[in-house]
Amino acid sequence: MAIITSHFAIVKSTVHFPCMSNQHRSLKPTAVRMSMKQQSRNSHPYWASMQADIEAHIKQFITIKEPLVVFEPMHHLIINAPKTTLPALCVAACELVGGERHEAISAASALLIMEAATYTHEHLPLTDRPKPEFGMNHVYGPNVELLTGDGIVPFGFELLARSDGGENSERILRVMVEISRAVGSRGVIEAQYRKAMGSRSDGEEMCHVEEIRRVVEKYEGGLHSCGAVCGGVLGGGSEEEIEKLRKIGSYVGMIQGMVQRGFSGSKEVDEARNLAIKELEFFKDKEVDAIKTFLNV
Amino acid sequence: MAIITSHFAIVKSTVHFPCMSNQHRSLKPTAVRMSMKQQSRNSHPYWASMQADIEAHIKQFITIKEPLVVFEPMHHLIINAPKTTLPALCVAACELVGGERHEAISAASALLIMEAATYTHEHLPLTDRPKPEFGMNHVYGPNVELLTGDGIVPFGFELLARSDGGENSERILRVMVEISRAVGSRGVIEAQYRKAMGSRSDGEEMCHVEEIRRVVEKYEGGLHSCGAVCGGVLGGGSEEEIEKLRKIGSYVGMIQGMVQRGFSGSKEVDEARNLAIKELEFFKDKEVDAIKTFLNV
Repeated sequence: MAIITSHFAIVKSTVHFPCMSNQHRSLKPTAVRMSMKQQSRNSHPYWASMQADIEAHIKQFITIKEPLVVFEPMHHLIINAPKTTLPALCVAACELVGGERHEAISAASALLIMEAATYTHEHLPLTDRPKPEFGMNHVYGPNVELLTGDGIVPFGFELLARSDGGENSERILRVMVEISRAVGSRGVIEAQYRKAMGSRSDGEEMCHVEEIRRVVEKYEGGLHSCGAVCGGVLGGGSEEEIEKLRKIGSYVGMIQGMVQRGFSGSKEVDEARNLAIKELEFFKDKEVDAIKTFLNV
Repeated sequence: MAIITSHFAIVKSTVHFPCMSNQHRSLKPTAVRMSMKQQSRNSHPYWASMQADIEAHIKQFITIKEPLVVFEPMHHLIINAPKTTLPALCVAACELVGGERHEAISAASALLIMEAATYTHEHLPLTDRPKPEFGMNHVYGPNVELLTGDGIVPFGFELLARSDGGENSERILRVMVEISRAVGSRGVIEAQYRKAMGSRSDGEEMCHVEEIRRVVEKYEGGLHSCGAVCGGVLGGGSEEEIEKLRKIGSYVGMIQGMVQRGFSGSKEVDEARNLAIKELEFFKDKEVDAIKTFLNV
């Protein structure tokens, strides 16, 4: 198995942690806006193939149409948001439990879309927010970005709700509850609150590892946990498999989130990897190589 | 049938139209923040009863719990958002096609929640937005309001997705697609874009009646149309009934939106009322009195 570089799971937050050591700050802001094409060069073929499928699926739904003033920024912000391992993990989890890729593609797309909305709003210039040193390349004004972010979330839910041919509606609803929770008040929003509260008035963010770990647990941990569960549900996994995937996803998120913030060799990452490998033993009769790629960052 | 005052469908935007005549500006900003209790005093008993049921339903789901820093603002912003006729219309449409109130209560609650999110973000102080003369009473900072608004939308979808006992999932998914579209890029977001583009740099908004009519058509028209369709779908209405409700809802929204903006005696309102009454003839064997109350503002 090839060792995966961290370029695929490209960084959202690293540049906002000026309290890190120089070693941890080595990732330049230009990397944040690295195109998917550039990222894919360094990533595992399995991930690249999944990501390509997911992006193609999304592009079917967000063709640029009238009113251009609404759809053009939406298209831009979804396609140009930094990519993470979340959508690919959702598909991998589906395949792990014996499902087919197409069964998880809408949920994976919805997750990518939700992340784009979150990224857009995280970089909105608000009057009570410190101006970030580096960050998003703002093509549009704040008002357009706010509105577009607000339009992106319902679009994600719509894409998912429309994906059902009539036979799978209960699973889709279950997935919607999972996604709502992960991106909402018990997940990403709670993590963002914690992060906002940890910010200093001069724009520097918290640097206490334990506090970062708690944010990552709620943020990337919660999202990846949700992604893995959604894949498991849509792939027809058993309840036991789904609960195992919930834990594995959470560990994957912890690894990805800590590595993205510059803590690649930390005990938190090692611990999460070991725990994930232990949970993966449950799937010993299955093809686990794909899932394992998410642990080797 | 008692004549309904417009106090129930309390104004979102009137105070932002300084180009209106004084007569149209008579609604004071304090009225914008009028409590539900005050509004109910002047509203029809049928509406008040429905609104009470919807609010009780929502309160079951958003009990104030840990983390307080997340749930307390969410609770506040949902409960204190200005009330409109939208949720009540959803329930009335369900009852019109022979459904029971409880069948539409989650969709009505989700619609109320979506409106609260929209209201919160519409009043967010952004660096490229003119400061409104009057507006929301900001209890929280912009960052908290942005996050809370972002948390409210997934909460609405979650409440709806969880409302299914396993027998109704296809209808729920259909309703989700309708709501996603109405609050998203083809509905409210498009209307907000149009409104933002119509704003002048000094904070004064467009005052051309035709342009206002187009915004209302997309905004209140689209939302009420969606609300009526959701009620029809969940009440088990036929496709023909649902399509009639789509039109009737759109006219109700036009009436409500124009009246809220001070155009109560306008030809747009009269026209919409006449068209709605014509469409209601389709339901001549049904109990249409409740729906008619939405036309008499």
